[in-house]
Amino acid sequence: MLLEPNDESTVAGELDAAALDRVLREARTHSAWLDRPVTDEHLRRIYDLMKWGPTSANCSPARIVFLKSREAKERLAPALAPGNVEPTQRAPVTAIVAHDSRFYDELPRLFPYVDARAWFVDSPALAETTAFRNGTLQGAYLILAARALGLDAGPMSGFDNAAVDREFFPDGRWKSNFLVNLGYGDRSRLRPRGPRLTFDEAARIL
Amino acid sequence: MLLEPNDESTVAGELDAAALDRVLREARTHSAWLDRPVTDEHLRRIYDLMKWGPTSANCSPARIVFLKSREAKERLAPALAPGNVEPTQRAPVTAIVAHDSRFYDELPRLFPYVDARAWFVDSPALAETTAFRNGTLQGAYLILAARALGLDAGPMSGFDNAAVDREFFPDGRWKSNFLVNLGYGDRSRLRPRGPRLTFDEAARIL
Repeated sequence: MLLEPNDESTVAGELDAAALDRVLREARTHSAWLDRPVTDEHLRRIYDLMKWGPTSANCSPARIVFLKSREAKERLAPALAPGNVEPTQRAPVTAIVAHDSRFYDELPRLFPYVDARAWFVDSPALAETTAFRNGTLQGAYLILAARALGLDAGPMSGFDNAAVDREFFPDGRWKSNFLVNLGYGDRSRLRPRGPRLTFDEAARIL
Repeated sequence: MLLEPNDESTVAGELDAAALDRVLREARTHSAWLDRPVTDEHLRRIYDLMKWGPTSANCSPARIVFLKSREAKERLAPALAPGNVEPTQRAPVTAIVAHDSRFYDELPRLFPYVDARAWFVDSPALAETTAFRNGTLQGAYLILAARALGLDAGPMSGFDNAAVDREFFPDGRWKSNFLVNLGYGDRSRLRPRGPRLTFDEAARIL
């Protein structure tokens, strides 16, 4: 619910405390999961929310492979860091957040105002940086979209990207970025939360 | 507000429609701004929300420089793509989302469970990828945190990163990633929204 100016909040249009808690303030990275399924409908709702997040020239390079079956999970396991194997086996779904290295071929449709494809087609370094930056932004939108829909997330970068790419993307066009376990986390198995940097350590106002 | 199971939502713990609209579904990238200030208190509240978003081993590499004064904005202007100059001049605040290339020096405090600093200190390529990926995730958290607090965002990557780094980070330790204008957007000056890829174009379930 958005707070109105006459509510207790000082800012109109702000999410209330429970919503801020769920999406960021009290949300945690989970590696232990309740025995409660995640449906294909959940995955479609996550995508239909995350897709609206902003990307540069609407380039939308992220591609998501949701691993739900035992067989698909088993194809992933050899690429994982040892500590990530069991949490991934037990998670109802593991998302591979990848990006399309030829994302710019969709720009005439996604951003029809200028010839944005021409910015990238002969500039592989710019294309790679753009795909990685914007695909990562979309991975963050995926994490927060899952939380906003009542699920929990367990993002991981401890795995062998090249091995995942060989197994899942043998034609070389999509490239793996990071992984996100999805499900309903078991809060009783969380360890204490790590500290964060203070504003004055991480930010400046000029 | 979170919906309870007996509300109209089908999922307990899910944000309601107004909150989903504000953060993602109806939120837009703005480049025209209302004449309404953004205070230092807003910037501190944005940071205090975004800081809770997950990063790998809690590494938290993002560093944010909020440009609020005319003088600071003028230092940025020569590095901007021509189309980004006016929106940035008129925005109440422009955030430089950067990352600390020596982020791993904070890991003994941020992630005291293992010697995570040792993963990075002699692996500059891994350190650079980790800083870019996780600093970008934190930039996405900044965008959505601003929206959750009732503000609007205008992220931009059309600028000369090296020129920004020379001007603002001459010692070479922090590196610019992208920019985010912050303020209250003028919805009357938005153009029609770009399309998004469908689930079947961008995702698979295995």
